[in-house]
Amino acid sequence: MHKGFVLWFTGLSGAGKSTLADALVLEFRQRGYKVELLDGDEVRTNLSKGLGFSKEDRDTNIRRIGYVARLLARNGAIAITAAISPYTAIRDENRAATLADGAGFIEVYAEASLDALVARDVKGLYKKALAGEIAYFTGVSDPYEAPENPEIRCKTDTDTPEQSVAQILAYLTANGWIG
Amino acid sequence: MHKGFVLWFTGLSGAGKSTLADALVLEFRQRGYKVELLDGDEVRTNLSKGLGFSKEDRDTNIRRIGYVARLLARNGAIAITAAISPYTAIRDENRAATLADGAGFIEVYAEASLDALVARDVKGLYKKALAGEIAYFTGVSDPYEAPENPEIRCKTDTDTPEQSVAQILAYLTANGWIG
Repeated sequence: MHKGFVLWFTGLSGAGKSTLADALVLEFRQRGYKVELLDGDEVRTNLSKGLGFSKEDRDTNIRRIGYVARLLARNGAIAITAAISPYTAIRDENRAATLADGAGFIEVYAEASLDALVARDVKGLYKKALAGEIAYFTGVSDPYEAPENPEIRCKTDTDTPEQSVAQILAYLTANGWIG
Repeated sequence: MHKGFVLWFTGLSGAGKSTLADALVLEFRQRGYKVELLDGDEVRTNLSKGLGFSKEDRDTNIRRIGYVARLLARNGAIAITAAISPYTAIRDENRAATLADGAGFIEVYAEASLDALVARDVKGLYKKALAGEIAYFTGVSDPYEAPENPEIRCKTDTDTPEQSVAQILAYLTANGWIG
């Protein structure tokens, strides 16, 4: 049985976290791995109803995602998280707790420039945020602390999702996380 | 790989849920199973900080335990829960969701009479509750709905923990949950 690990995506809204995570779930399932996707919305529904978007509430939400992810990983599963997770300190806290549990923690930064995301604006959220219609919108009216040394950095504003998925799989294979 | 399942303890405070759950964790680990114990206190710390003991908050807490337990079970682990979980409807909701996920759900009722628990009163909580010093104390000042058809019913006021553990292991073996 392989060692479980957490594949922790971080990045701005629209940077491709969920797209990459969804593709990897299919890929891992096809290869016979146990895999679970914890995205921001699902976890908010099941674990964090009532929490808002203040720093304290965001931190609590990300800590809960981290707790569930490492429970899964320490039982041999691959846990993929795809929440914005804007604060370095909380990501690092989850990393430390996961490693202490004997599971792996691989941070993937879905990196796209704010300009590219605003230009793309798939859901129209940046337009609203820039118009001041959304409070606490990460990258516009709320901070985003980019990871300095993520295990994997995907340039999602220039690379295709297929290229990024291939990059992630290559890293995981080269480092012995998948066979 | 065996099919994952949730071993869901329910019963009054002091009825032996945690004692039995702790013993089973050791037993399963020794046999090489992936096992995770979600007890009420740990989950309250990690998932439900801020929740109180009103019916609504208790229900939310038990739903969260159920969510995490079935994520673990559907990834092949044995998830043991040891919260009082006083309401039938929420236990049954978790059962249905776990079965829908393709994992097993085995309810264990740690059954002890209130008289026996009051007489034993290991933590001195019943004395306080009966004196009105603890609000929402299950079985005294808050309801407990006993399961009508649990898969396993352990008579913890008369049987020893060893007898109850043996009873649970015998059930799991006879029904193919463990080898």
